[in-house]
Amino acid sequence: MFQLNKVSDKTKARKGLLETDHGSIETPIFMPVGTLGTVKAVNQDDLKNKVKAQIILGNTYHLYLRPGNHIMQDAGGLHSFMGWDKPILTDSGGYQIFSLSDIRELREEGAEFQSHLDGSKHLFTPENVVDTQRVLGSDIMMILDECPPYPAEYDYVKESMGLTHRWAERGRKQFEETEPLYGHQQMQFGIVQGGTFEDLRKESSEFMASLDFEGLAIGGLSVGEPSDLMYEVTDYNTDLLPREKPRYLMGVGTPGNLLQCVALGIDMFDCVMPTRNARNGMLFTRNGTINIRNAKWKNHHKPLDPDFPSDACQRYKMSYVHHLFRNEELLGLELASKHNLTFYLWLMETIREKIEDGTFADWYPGMMEVVERRI
Amino acid sequence: MFQLNKVSDKTKARKGLLETDHGSIETPIFMPVGTLGTVKAVNQDDLKNKVKAQIILGNTYHLYLRPGNHIMQDAGGLHSFMGWDKPILTDSGGYQIFSLSDIRELREEGAEFQSHLDGSKHLFTPENVVDTQRVLGSDIMMILDECPPYPAEYDYVKESMGLTHRWAERGRKQFEETEPLYGHQQMQFGIVQGGTFEDLRKESSEFMASLDFEGLAIGGLSVGEPSDLMYEVTDYNTDLLPREKPRYLMGVGTPGNLLQCVALGIDMFDCVMPTRNARNGMLFTRNGTINIRNAKWKNHHKPLDPDFPSDACQRYKMSYVHHLFRNEELLGLELASKHNLTFYLWLMETIREKIEDGTFADWYPGMMEVVERRI
Ligand SMILES: [Zn+2]
Ligand SMILES: [Zn+2]
Repeated sequence: MFQLNKVSDKTKARKGLLETDHGSIETPIFMPVGTLGTVKAVNQDDLKNKVKAQIILGNTYHLYLRPGNHIMQDAGGLHSFMGWDKPILTDSGGYQIFSLSDIRELREEGAEFQSHLDGSKHLFTPENVVDTQRVLGSDIMMILDECPPYPAEYDYVKESMGLTHRWAERGRKQFEETEPLYGHQQMQFGIVQGGTFEDLRKESSEFMASLDFEGLAIGGLSVGEPSDLMYEVTDYNTDLLPREKPRYLMGVGTPGNLLQCVALGIDMFDCVMPTRNARNGMLFTRNGTINIRNAKWKNHHKPLDPDFPSDACQRYKMSYVHHLFRNEELLGLELASKHNLTFYLWLMETIREKIEDGTFADWYPGMMEVVERRI
Repeated sequence: MFQLNKVSDKTKARKGLLETDHGSIETPIFMPVGTLGTVKAVNQDDLKNKVKAQIILGNTYHLYLRPGNHIMQDAGGLHSFMGWDKPILTDSGGYQIFSLSDIRELREEGAEFQSHLDGSKHLFTPENVVDTQRVLGSDIMMILDECPPYPAEYDYVKESMGLTHRWAERGRKQFEETEPLYGHQQMQFGIVQGGTFEDLRKESSEFMASLDFEGLAIGGLSVGEPSDLMYEVTDYNTDLLPREKPRYLMGVGTPGNLLQCVALGIDMFDCVMPTRNARNGMLFTRNGTINIRNAKWKNHHKPLDPDFPSDACQRYKMSYVHHLFRNEELLGLELASKHNLTFYLWLMETIREKIEDGTFADWYPGMMEVVERRI
């Protein structure tokens, strides 16, 4: 299902194709986050045709609480519910249990938590998050894991990793013993933990590889550690992963992070940054990052990037987008969100072209400097 | 510039064509309101291609305060500023001065007011609202008028009407003595006042007709009076207007109001209702009005109107739109706003077809019952 087409010779960057029943995904890829079955402020047609998203992410925790599994199954799964016919990846909800809800009890069986919406009690187990993701019908589902914070002690991280491994076995077994509900195939990705400790990362990578998941994620990063440390861990972790499986770095990152982590051998990314920052007026461009709310744009009557290869970015003047933000108009949020996602997907497409033509290693350091510039 | 193509024989409904340098407008027409140069929650491409808006409205008061005339002129006018190449009508700002701002002094010269944004002082005169609308470059500009509230005493309405008439003369003179700034022609519409008093309406209609505006609006209605009274005044007022000029009923209304007022001889409408109600979850359909926030739609997996002749309304399930509203997702506001506007524009298109084929008089009473139903 995953086919590796080219590996850069001076870096670890890889170009591949991940096939799903909802279409192929070219890697390296960025996956826009659609927490509640909507990528905030962007409609599905624009997401497909303007942003050119190839796969999006849905959050199991949020969708389990609302609309809930009963309605989701009646709707025919998430693709049908939200009107999106391209691939979807769903996380397991583990990260949100730990970050949003009140954990009541973390035990071998699973995690008992209270909903952040109404305080109701729920139990997520390695098995029932597979069941919920069967109901969602995502093309790629994730196992339930525990993600330790940063910084964390060696002993804590080791013990937490042990729990994640036992949950991984149970989750894989549940996946193998159940069937998709809507006639399209689903894949399951394991999640490597181990914090910032190389021996634990090695143990976790080997363990996850042994369960023969369709892909492997690097979890436990982008939780507050410095960028350099995130790069360091990613660097040695990718060396520990099987070459033939797609690699997903969860929750990363800035455009600069994407460039660097592709060079370190990552195939898939997701992050709320492009949409969340857009709603605050921070826009990524091929010349650097700007804040459209800044008064210096109020009389600047040129598009953000006039010859950007996407009409989403040429259609409106900066002065107009500034005006929309200044007046809290909803269209500002839409245009900014579409712009940033379009930029992210353009960046990934350019990365793939550079890997293909063998110029990635020479190109990406300069591009990193550009995208990290503030203008 | 206005061509009357067909008049219904059993009602006063008229079908016509109003030509502007930004394209022709088929009448009867509804004009979506884009107060600050954006129709709330709908982007310009969707407004043109999905909603099929033929002309939109901009508010002089709001755009004068933000972004202001200097930036607007640098941008090349409102069409260029907002990226909209079809016709625009701008009001004069009179209504907003009286409803939003703190009037400091209403005098013969004009109206001095304090901005609702920062308390700054400004003076609108019949002349300078023409100048501002030259800067905006709208295809149709409106004169400055005073719009009395409802109810209002005869003497007050008569005196107010006198001021509106004197301002109309000054505004028309300013229009005739100035030129468009951006190479496309502009029209100017007069506004008939007179409250709910037939003799004043007659006097005002005759006065406005004498100034030879390119079109005439009926002002001073939809300010809190009962529907029946609004219909009654509209009915006698249209009889007092020249047959060959387009007639615009300002600030009206519900789908039922549009049907009834077309029958009474109105050609143009504007109202915030379709977009404002959409943001509260109230959706207009060919079967009646629904509130999508109602729990009864949460497990209803059909589109709002499955065979409605617009993909905007078939693309998403009601359960999904309900879910978006319940979670305060921005996409809900976009879909609901697009839906209601699409419905309004469809209604006007259907009205034109019924006038054309001679069936309007028989069709509209039944349709009024349907659109006023709650489901
Ligand atoms: Zn059911
Ligand atoms: Zn200037």
